[in-house]
Amino acid sequence: MILYGAPNPAPNPRRVRIFLAEKGIDLPETLVDMRKREHKAPEFRAKNSLGQLPTLELDDGATISETVAICRYFEELNPSPSLFGQTALEKAMVDMWVRRVEFVLMNPVGQYWRHAHPYTASLLTQYKEFGESNRETVMSAMKWLDRELAEKPFVAGDAYSMADICALTTIDFADWIGLKMPDDLPHLKAWHDRVTARPSANA
Amino acid sequence: MILYGAPNPAPNPRRVRIFLAEKGIDLPETLVDMRKREHKAPEFRAKNSLGQLPTLELDDGATISETVAICRYFEELNPSPSLFGQTALEKAMVDMWVRRVEFVLMNPVGQYWRHAHPYTASLLTQYKEFGESNRETVMSAMKWLDRELAEKPFVAGDAYSMADICALTTIDFADWIGLKMPDDLPHLKAWHDRVTARPSANA
Repeated sequence: MILYGAPNPAPNPRRVRIFLAEKGIDLPETLVDMRKREHKAPEFRAKNSLGQLPTLELDDGATISETVAICRYFEELNPSPSLFGQTALEKAMVDMWVRRVEFVLMNPVGQYWRHAHPYTASLLTQYKEFGESNRETVMSAMKWLDRELAEKPFVAGDAYSMADICALTTIDFADWIGLKMPDDLPHLKAWHDRVTARPSANA
Repeated sequence: MILYGAPNPAPNPRRVRIFLAEKGIDLPETLVDMRKREHKAPEFRAKNSLGQLPTLELDDGATISETVAICRYFEELNPSPSLFGQTALEKAMVDMWVRRVEFVLMNPVGQYWRHAHPYTASLLTQYKEFGESNRETVMSAMKWLDRELAEKPFVAGDAYSMADICALTTIDFADWIGLKMPDDLPHLKAWHDRVTARPSANA
């Protein structure tokens, strides 16, 4: 199989790399040059009609996109250590927290990047006032996550999971685009230190 | 267990109702009055800190939110008929298509509703020009989905799945807020007729 990806700071390929590192799976990425827009070229769109990275191509030519779906595929093939939960309730909680991180935190980070950041201004039509409004939304989301992390070590509960990987990559990308975690969020900061200390965070 | 929900046209509670109908699970909803903002009251936020519907409360008091996570919980308890796929690849494909529908179609429908619709104008700060821009994004998403459905009967492939439920509820809600499916999308139209003909669509 071939894993098409891109280097940091792109948050989506990193999510899969961290997951593979946690699983102990060695699968080097085939890099696609996003600055040259190779991921939007017809050859790549034949693999992923949306032109997104990462994309996983299986030996029979089937392709899987969306980071969480790619990770779920590897979870099914290599169930241990579990990163999507094992019981029905654990699986539901990981799914719930992945979604909460995506909808509550990742979406406004993405909208800020898309509509307010100078880097994307030359590539896309920006609605700047809306884009800027997402800074406050992101800060509120981080405060909410801080409160949620007051009484549990990881985002979905007692165990490190896919939800931590989603939150870590989002918060690190947010930092890189200028949406820094406020200093007065001790639980979020302690969680960030905890997950960053894992070797997988270097991926 | 208690399933907190709300009547149509709210798209999220409907998603769970369709899923339960497909599974043959009889679980009446306990209605929460969104017009009275009961879902944002402290009593309900104790069950779901984000104040969202639907929310599932288990007999031990644990709560699950996010529609897809709630449905995944029921899938684990009642695997047949499968609506999330059975093999590793099927599971990945359903997850991928659920996410594609959510990110590509549901997100701009939600942004239009949030930032351009008269109903929400009195509740929220709107960025109207941005909101209106989502009409074109939604139409592009429907065209893309039409092309994708040219050679398969259901969103994730040969079998009806959670991805169809996500797409159906999104497209019906879009229609209700004034984002009608264009007439010149025959594959999307045929798919919509196909899934609407199932008894579960009445949920």
